[in-house]
Amino acid sequence: MKEIGVGVLGWGTVGAGVVEGLLRRGDLLSARAGVRPVLRGVADVDLERDRGYAVDRSLLTTDAAALVDDPRIEVVVELIGGVGISRELVLRALERGKTLVTANKALLATHGPELFSTARARGVTIHFEASVGGGIPVIRALQYGLIANEIRSIYGILNGTSNYILTRMEIENIPFDRALRKAQHAGYAEADPTLDIDGHDTAHKLAILATLAYGRAVPTDAIAVCGIRSVLPADIAYARELGYRIKLLASARPHPDGLIVGVQPTFVPADHLLASVSGVFNAILLDGDLTGQTMYYGRGAGREPTASAVLSDIVEAAHRRVSADAWLPPCFEARRGPFRWLAPDESVGRSYLRMTLKDRPGILARVAQVLGEHGVSIASVVQKETATGRQVAVIIITHETPGRQVTRAMEEIDRLDCVGAPTARFHIEDFKNEVL
Amino acid sequence: MKEIGVGVLGWGTVGAGVVEGLLRRGDLLSARAGVRPVLRGVADVDLERDRGYAVDRSLLTTDAAALVDDPRIEVVVELIGGVGISRELVLRALERGKTLVTANKALLATHGPELFSTARARGVTIHFEASVGGGIPVIRALQYGLIANEIRSIYGILNGTSNYILTRMEIENIPFDRALRKAQHAGYAEADPTLDIDGHDTAHKLAILATLAYGRAVPTDAIAVCGIRSVLPADIAYARELGYRIKLLASARPHPDGLIVGVQPTFVPADHLLASVSGVFNAILLDGDLTGQTMYYGRGAGREPTASAVLSDIVEAAHRRVSADAWLPPCFEARRGPFRWLAPDESVGRSYLRMTLKDRPGILARVAQVLGEHGVSIASVVQKETATGRQVAVIIITHETPGRQVTRAMEEIDRLDCVGAPTARFHIEDFKNEVL
Repeated sequence: MKEIGVGVLGWGTVGAGVVEGLLRRGDLLSARAGVRPVLRGVADVDLERDRGYAVDRSLLTTDAAALVDDPRIEVVVELIGGVGISRELVLRALERGKTLVTANKALLATHGPELFSTARARGVTIHFEASVGGGIPVIRALQYGLIANEIRSIYGILNGTSNYILTRMEIENIPFDRALRKAQHAGYAEADPTLDIDGHDTAHKLAILATLAYGRAVPTDAIAVCGIRSVLPADIAYARELGYRIKLLASARPHPDGLIVGVQPTFVPADHLLASVSGVFNAILLDGDLTGQTMYYGRGAGREPTASAVLSDIVEAAHRRVSADAWLPPCFEARRGPFRWLAPDESVGRSYLRMTLKDRPGILARVAQVLGEHGVSIASVVQKETATGRQVAVIIITHETPGRQVTRAMEEIDRLDCVGAPTARFHIEDFKNEVL
Repeated sequence: MKEIGVGVLGWGTVGAGVVEGLLRRGDLLSARAGVRPVLRGVADVDLERDRGYAVDRSLLTTDAAALVDDPRIEVVVELIGGVGISRELVLRALERGKTLVTANKALLATHGPELFSTARARGVTIHFEASVGGGIPVIRALQYGLIANEIRSIYGILNGTSNYILTRMEIENIPFDRALRKAQHAGYAEADPTLDIDGHDTAHKLAILATLAYGRAVPTDAIAVCGIRSVLPADIAYARELGYRIKLLASARPHPDGLIVGVQPTFVPADHLLASVSGVFNAILLDGDLTGQTMYYGRGAGREPTASAVLSDIVEAAHRRVSADAWLPPCFEARRGPFRWLAPDESVGRSYLRMTLKDRPGILARVAQVLGEHGVSIASVVQKETATGRQVAVIIITHETPGRQVTRAMEEIDRLDCVGAPTARFHIEDFKNEVL
């Protein structure tokens, strides 16, 4: 059986799982793949830490560039992360005609066009199943399975840390800060959780899915991003009363002027499948014009699930080497022509508004008047007594309204002297119910 | 761009969608695939019926064998169904070195080993994404995405007709017969619904998934099959009371002696994702030893979803022709060695028993005694008054028990003279809860 040499850059959590898989699952992989990926080297700055298994010292190096240059290595697996040294190394690999496997969503989202044009010029391929959704083979579903479809929309719960925190807040009725500490304690959140909870990790993944679906590189700064810090236990409780759950939802769908892309806490109907995605699990809903709604669910992170995706890519990369098939579906291409990136709030939809008002006569009428003046019609109102009696929370659900009108109404409301704190707003996503 | 000739056998519902896709989506497919599949012929016994679009008469023929033999056709797409003429035609195609695309689950489940050994001998490939789960790319997920995993279990809702009927029974509280008529009226059930409602269609699909996961051809007659005719509205109501929903569930998992495979109405926890799969939708839960639980969801049948899967296979087939890549993952192989096929009821699990007992003093004690004698311990009992007062329904939920003990206890109970009708039994599947 043909052997294909593999070099792994980065021996961290995922790297440790991938190296273990290559060492221990070689027979399984080659029996299934008809080609044998063989580990020829592992590069990391720390070669001493215990990864839980033994590796022949001769395979280990701190010199990543030398590993990339090793002529016995045809497939380079980048698991370093970030957009610094990793970018240099993968470009070096591509320029030397190596096939690239990477789990690096930040690198793809930021430097995708450069990487893919380099790969095309050298006649090699890039495989990145592990960059979105961990162990869920959603990249394959979009690239191959749904290849005959125009994608009508993408919705995703793409960050396990955020989803874990929202799930804990809901189950235990605790505020964000406490849920975050629990996530950190359980090992589901980093010491610096910014990338996860502020939505940037989700935005990177959305950029990758959207470029596959719509053929055009999505600049990450074109994505409207709002994380979950602003979600209060009260919002979760109101959502439940109204028949919804709050999820940090990534979304992308075409618009006559371009593409609507965003990441924001969103009200999802409680009986929708996405609402049942709890804890660290991820799910991606792809709506194809032939398939209708399809959904993909599983663990979005972690050593083994992510290693599973990387190993599947190594097999595909090895295969492509053997068959000399350098086909790359169109993605990360910088296309010309006028194109706009719109935030979900710029389209027509329903909104949840949480206002903090001073408890005075006539304020609700005043607020309702402002909404009416901006053409925002009200579907329901909930006003609750608070313990202090000084301020009241008023929850308003709007009918379908152009988002900008809601934005302008909110700005005006927040200038009223009866308003005690800025109004919070969450998008309500009522998916077309295809069932029955 | 390289063109690959495609011939379609069978211009029925799915065939009409596939031909339309080839005619109208040629540019989209070739832009994404880097190769252009070109329709070179369509064979059907009925060329006159209106399919909703025009096709050049020169492409149409009633002579399927001649189409298979056409040297301009490299990819043969079999959409005739059944295991008669379709088998002859696909073998003819494979023997002539054509690449095969098929949606025919009955053919694969019955003649898979013959087809695949012929394909291997001729160095061509077989693609069958549309054979399971309609528009859901679950074959790709299993063959490629989860290639590095040992599959710990497969669970699937694989028949839209049965799921539609169970959903209608639950929502409208109507008996099976009425729900079946509604399904037929809505076009979701055939005039002869036997294959669907008695579980055989599900068994064919399970055989395909299991052979991919476990590398060994699963004879369809080795699968314990029970359809949904025996489900009463009362069972659905009891299930709901107990926190479950009833689904026609296919399952496969390894056992020290072989493989446990079965299709049967099953109690699924109401908060499990599979319980939320309603109407004609399908879902497949694949538990990989690296990924953990993953799930794939979408429309399991219908013209467009199934055409989407067939078109994705045509693209892959065209690609394989261009790159001369004839790799076939191990599946449908007749392996040697002792191997047993076990029914789910032969393993250890919990059961739901619905007994119809004559309303006499002491009968419950008698039944409980028989269960105890067979080592079946009772988790809960519900006895409800009935309108007639002559018979009572007694529902018993067992603790984890070897299935054979329950079978023997049931046999003995059904011989008691206090029993008014045979006891119904459904498996309770408590999935390992991986969340949080």
